[in-house]
Amino acid sequence: MQTVRLLGLDPGLQHTGWGVVESSGNRLRHIADGVISTTTELSLAERLCQIHRALNALMDLWKPEEAAVEHTYVNKNPGAALKLGQARGVVLLAPALAGLPVAEYQAMEVKRAVVGTGHADKTQVSAMVQRLLPGATLRRADASDALAVAICHAHHRSSRLALAKGYVPA
Amino acid sequence: MQTVRLLGLDPGLQHTGWGVVESSGNRLRHIADGVISTTTELSLAERLCQIHRALNALMDLWKPEEAAVEHTYVNKNPGAALKLGQARGVVLLAPALAGLPVAEYQAMEVKRAVVGTGHADKTQVSAMVQRLLPGATLRRADASDALAVAICHAHHRSSRLALAKGYVPA
Repeated sequence: MQTVRLLGLDPGLQHTGWGVVESSGNRLRHIADGVISTTTELSLAERLCQIHRALNALMDLWKPEEAAVEHTYVNKNPGAALKLGQARGVVLLAPALAGLPVAEYQAMEVKRAVVGTGHADKTQVSAMVQRLLPGATLRRADASDALAVAICHAHHRSSRLALAKGYVPA
Repeated sequence: MQTVRLLGLDPGLQHTGWGVVESSGNRLRHIADGVISTTTELSLAERLCQIHRALNALMDLWKPEEAAVEHTYVNKNPGAALKLGQARGVVLLAPALAGLPVAEYQAMEVKRAVVGTGHADKTQVSAMVQRLLPGATLRRADASDALAVAICHAHHRSSRLALAKGYVPA
């Protein structure tokens, strides 16, 4: 059974959640998770550097082979969307530069994969992540969301592999 | 008289304009300009890699010492703002990682510095850039906007230097 390490990412300028899981067939294992926080006193460019460097450091350490990034919900404020976008661009860039395939999932797809419904709330997602990955400490919601993206990616890629092998889903 | 090379940047996912000028006291000289265009068929992460690599290549070639990025106007559409933000994050990151100080200017500040009024249109900005930098070819509007940001930064930094030396502005 092929084992693959997946890096889930939940981008934000202030806090970027990350989580690494190992997927082997239908089995999932928690490897590590955490949050990259930036220094608000620094300039925007310097904060983006902090995110970039931290992502490179954790990829060096945990050696994920694929990455998945949450397509965070964009609220009605274009200024907030621009700010989130800046962090998201840097979060997408780092794994791609490192040669990892980078998948993107809508927040609703992530919830559906983890909880079974696209309308689950944060508490339900967090409880289900904890249940699927017993080792996860989930000290912060951002890390829980990042692990949820990694779980979502694990489900999607094993469905794709099953289809590629000729299994027909029920 | 100290001479410094400035890199102006006008970010966009499809087209990122760039321009390099040399500033020496009140004198400006055009060095180079161009547009980084991404392949629409590629994934978002791969397009952001294209921007990052192209920025690194042009910094290697033209050796700018400071960078300035336009704070592009955010329209009413949060989806478009998120998209622009992703490119902008990557555009801010590359010079910062290369150790360049990165300044940001609002579009109105750029227009004021180049044309004299914050309400100038694109044609007026382009005409004035051409006049201030006779060598610029300005084949594309994005490159013209990037040179305008570089000119704006040149003005701001020489005012700051003058103030630092004890000159009082009229």
